[in-house]
Amino acid sequence: VSDASPPYFAVIFSSTRDARPGDGYAEAAERMEELARHQPGFLGVESARDSALGITVSYWASREAVAAWGAHAEHLLAQKFGRDTWYTSFTLRVCVVEGVRSFTRPDGAAT
Amino acid sequence: VSDASPPYFAVIFSSTRDARPGDGYAEAAERMEELARHQPGFLGVESARDSALGITVSYWASREAVAAWGAHAEHLLAQKFGRDTWYTSFTLRVCVVEGVRSFTRPDGAAT
Repeated sequence: VSDASPPYFAVIFSSTRDARPGDGYAEAAERMEELARHQPGFLGVESARDSALGITVSYWASREAVAAWGAHAEHLLAQKFGRDTWYTSFTLRVCVVEGVRSFTRPDGAAT
Repeated sequence: VSDASPPYFAVIFSSTRDARPGDGYAEAAERMEELARHQPGFLGVESARDSALGITVSYWASREAVAAWGAHAEHLLAQKFGRDTWYTSFTLRVCVVEGVRSFTRPDGAAT
């Protein structure tokens, strides 16, 4: 992600869920990321998860790529939302990234 | 956040750090969020942290609010970046939120 120049696109996926380790949630989240990686226009993905809140931000080269992934992801999420009880709520936000500033400690690895 | 209508603004802060619980990082992150809450134009904030990666997304009403918070946050981060060793790297992305979809399970709480 770090070498893409704005403008590009971000999809912020925030979810709250019932905290039940071992319920297959982590595996499903990884599978979603894996699917995203194979979509056209994929630039990168970052995820962090607490016990209560998860945030996954995926980055995309074009509005078309976002729309294609959005339809795909929403379909998958809607299926899971109805069928499973992982998510208490989730929010999908589609954004245009306008500016980026990065800092890396000399001995560090870039995000 | 959930009742704001797009367009509004998001600042995505991704950071990698050395995982050392009890080093004051969590307290500093909370203090940053508390500072954000008192800035003009603040709409909301969401944070999730793994051992390795943290993502904090703050939401803002205007470009002016983002700029004011950005300058403030960058100043604070730069100080810490030089002085402390919490962060291995961090990236700040300024975004325009164009679209939002939320889903809440009937017995759930909104993100």
